[in-house]
Amino acid sequence: MEEWTVEVHHSKTKKNKPKTDQLEFGRLFTDHMFIMDYSEPVGWHDPRIVPYEPLTIDPSAMTFHYGQSVFEGLKAYYTPEGDIQLFRPDKNLQRLNRSNDRLCIPPVDEAFVLDAIKQLVFLEREWIPTSDGTSLYIRPFIISTEPFIGVAPSHQYKLIVILSPVGAYYKEGINPVKIAVENQYVRAVKGGTGEAKTGGNYAASLKAQELCAQKGFTQVLWLDGVEKKYIEEVGSMNVFFKVNGEVITPELNGSILEGVTRNSVIQLLKHWDIPVIEKKISLDELYEAYVNGTLEEAFGTGTAAVISPIGQLSWDDKDLFINGGKTGKVAKSLYETLTGIQYGREHDPFGWVEKVNETSAVK
Amino acid sequence: MEEWTVEVHHSKTKKNKPKTDQLEFGRLFTDHMFIMDYSEPVGWHDPRIVPYEPLTIDPSAMTFHYGQSVFEGLKAYYTPEGDIQLFRPDKNLQRLNRSNDRLCIPPVDEAFVLDAIKQLVFLEREWIPTSDGTSLYIRPFIISTEPFIGVAPSHQYKLIVILSPVGAYYKEGINPVKIAVENQYVRAVKGGTGEAKTGGNYAASLKAQELCAQKGFTQVLWLDGVEKKYIEEVGSMNVFFKVNGEVITPELNGSILEGVTRNSVIQLLKHWDIPVIEKKISLDELYEAYVNGTLEEAFGTGTAAVISPIGQLSWDDKDLFINGGKTGKVAKSLYETLTGIQYGREHDPFGWVEKVNETSAVK
Ligand SMILES: Cc1ncc(COP(=O)(O)O)c(C=O)c1O
Ligand SMILES: Cc1ncc(COP(=O)(O)O)c(C=O)c1O
Repeated sequence: MEEWTVEVHHSKTKKNKPKTDQLEFGRLFTDHMFIMDYSEPVGWHDPRIVPYEPLTIDPSAMTFHYGQSVFEGLKAYYTPEGDIQLFRPDKNLQRLNRSNDRLCIPPVDEAFVLDAIKQLVFLEREWIPTSDGTSLYIRPFIISTEPFIGVAPSHQYKLIVILSPVGAYYKEGINPVKIAVENQYVRAVKGGTGEAKTGGNYAASLKAQELCAQKGFTQVLWLDGVEKKYIEEVGSMNVFFKVNGEVITPELNGSILEGVTRNSVIQLLKHWDIPVIEKKISLDELYEAYVNGTLEEAFGTGTAAVISPIGQLSWDDKDLFINGGKTGKVAKSLYETLTGIQYGREHDPFGWVEKVNETSAVK
Repeated sequence: MEEWTVEVHHSKTKKNKPKTDQLEFGRLFTDHMFIMDYSEPVGWHDPRIVPYEPLTIDPSAMTFHYGQSVFEGLKAYYTPEGDIQLFRPDKNLQRLNRSNDRLCIPPVDEAFVLDAIKQLVFLEREWIPTSDGTSLYIRPFIISTEPFIGVAPSHQYKLIVILSPVGAYYKEGINPVKIAVENQYVRAVKGGTGEAKTGGNYAASLKAQELCAQKGFTQVLWLDGVEKKYIEEVGSMNVFFKVNGEVITPELNGSILEGVTRNSVIQLLKHWDIPVIEKKISLDELYEAYVNGTLEEAFGTGTAAVISPIGQLSWDDKDLFINGGKTGKVAKSLYETLTGIQYGREHDPFGWVEKVNETSAVK
C-alpha cells in the first residue's frame, strides 16, 4: 500500500471542544475518523478520513453475531514545547496484527496504518487537551462486516480509528486501589483468546467486575483458568509485585495480554538495575511473602492509568494491606518516568516516542 | 410489557424469493425484521416490525469494542397441512435470558419476545420454503449500543430478530462427517462464557476450525480447557456417543452450551427406554471403547443439522472409524423422529411444537 494516499473528506461542522474539567474517558469523539475496507480479492483498500458519523451496517454483519473483532488503545500527548507525540505506537500495531492472526482477520500493513493514525491525529490536533495528565485516546478497531450468519471467518472487514480527548486518570494524585481476587469467573485460558485484544475477553470480564464493584472493590485480580492458582492480570491491566527487593510479573503464557506498558516497565526496571523476573506467580506464594513481610509493592500497568498501585488485595477471609495502603517507591518512580517520557518532560533514552507533525501524512 | 403491541411498518418493496435450489444458509434475509430498544430508566421499549435494512450505529457503540452481545437460533417449519410451527421456542428464549445474565445484559420478557417472533414469522410466512428439509431460520440477537468506549456493561441495547430461508442441511441424505480432536485451541472454560450463546465463543473457535478444514476435517471436537482430557462439544453442536448399548453425552459443566436439540435427544431416548447418561467423558475412555469394539455410534446435535453422525474421529496418530463410517441406527431414528415432529409429519407426544397463525400477534 506504499503508494496509497488517504483521501480526506473534511467535516462541514465542528463540535465544541470540552473544557478540561468536562473531560471524561471515552464519551466524546473528535470531528473525523479513519476508515479502510477489506474485501476479496482486493484486500485492504480505500483508506480515507471522513467526518465522524454513524456506521451503516447490515443486521446480519458477522461482527454482531460471532464476535470476530479486535481493537487497540494508545494515546497522543502534547509536550511542554507544543510537540505532539505517540508512545511506542509500533508495539500497538504489532499487537493488532497478532490479535488479527488469532481471530482469523487478514493482517494490516503496520507502517501504513501508523502513518494514517498520525495523519488523523495531526488533522485533529486541536482536540488534544493540554492540561496536566490529559491526552487524546486513539482507538483503532476492526470489525467483520460480511452479511452472513454462519460460523466462519468473514470475507469483509472495516478498520476504523476514532479519537477521544481524555482527562487525567488521577485527578487527585496517584492513589492505590482495592482489588478482589476472582475465584469463580475466568477471563481467559491458555488456548483461548486471552493474548489477543478482542471483544469477547472483555465481555467475559463484565460479570466479575460488576460483582466485585458491589462489594466495594475497584477491579478483580484474575487467576489462571486451569488451576485457579496462578496470577494473570488485574482488571484490564498487567500486574507487578515487588517482593524482597525483586520485581516479579506473570510470564506471558498464552492467556495474558502483552501490555505495551508492561514491556516498558520491564525495560525501565532493567535500565535502573532493579531485578525483574517474569514467571508463574501463585497466589499462595504471594500470601507467604505478605506474611513474611517481604511483599513490598503491588501495581497494575496499562495505557489508561499507566501505573495503578494496589493498596489492598482480598480473597476469602484474607485482606492484604500492601505498603500500608500507600503508593510504593518503585510504582511512583515508574509512573513519573513513564509519564515524563510520554509527555516529553523527560529524556527518552529508549527511542519510545514518535513525533506527529505536518509531515505525518501517509507517504 | 403485556399491554404492548408491536408497531408494524410495512416494507414498500418486496425482494424476490429464492428457488429451492438457490437456498443457502444465512445469506438471504426476508423483507422485515423485529427491533426493540433498551435504555434506562424505561427498560425495553418501542417494539416494532420494520423493513429489513442496515442499522445506523455509532462507531463507538460498545458492541464493536467489548463484545457484549448474545444470540439465539431456531427455525419455523411448514407442515404437510400447511401449518407453520416452531420447535420448543420457549427453550431458546430461556437460554437467551441465561446468556443475558452471564453477559450483564438486562433480561427480556420471554413470552412477549416469543409472541413478537411469531408475529414476524406469520407476516413473512411466504418466505418459509416448503420443500423437504427446508425451513425459515430465526435469528434473535442483542447488541450493546451505548456510544462509550469503557469496559463496563452498556446502558443501551437493541434486540433484533432477522429471518433467513434455508435449504436442506442434507441435500444427499444424512451423511457422516470427519472430525478432528482439537488439542491446542480451547473454545471455552469453566468460569468463562461457554454456556452462554455469545459472539466471543464463536470468534475463539475460528482458528481451530480453519486449521482442521485445511487438513480435510469438517469440524473439531473440543476438549475441556482445564485438563484437555474431557470431551465437550463438536463444532457448534453437542455430542453424543453410543457405547455398549448405552448413550452418553458430556454433562453440563459450565463451559458447554445447553442445546435444545441435546435436551430433546435425551428426552426422546428416555421415551424409547434407551439408557442415556450425562457424565464427564474422557477421550481415553472413548478410545478404550473403540479398541474394545464397544464404541457403536457418535453424533453431534444442533438446530442446523439436527443430528450429524460422526464417521471418523482423529487425533495424534489415531483414526477411529465409527460404525464403519456409516450413520448409526440410533442417530438415524433420532433424526427421523425429531425432523418428523418439527415438520409435523409425526405425532408430538411432548408438546414441543408451537403453531404460528393469524392469532399470533402480540396480545
Ligand atoms: C486485558 C488487558 N491487559 C493488559 C492491558 C495493558 O496493556 P497496555 O499496557 O498495552 O495498555 C490492557 C489494556 O490495554 C488490557 O486490556
Ligand atoms: C456451541 C454450540 N453448542 C451446541 C449447539 C446446539 O444447540 P441447539 O441444539 O439449541 O441448536 C449450538 C448451536 O445452537 C452451539 O452454538
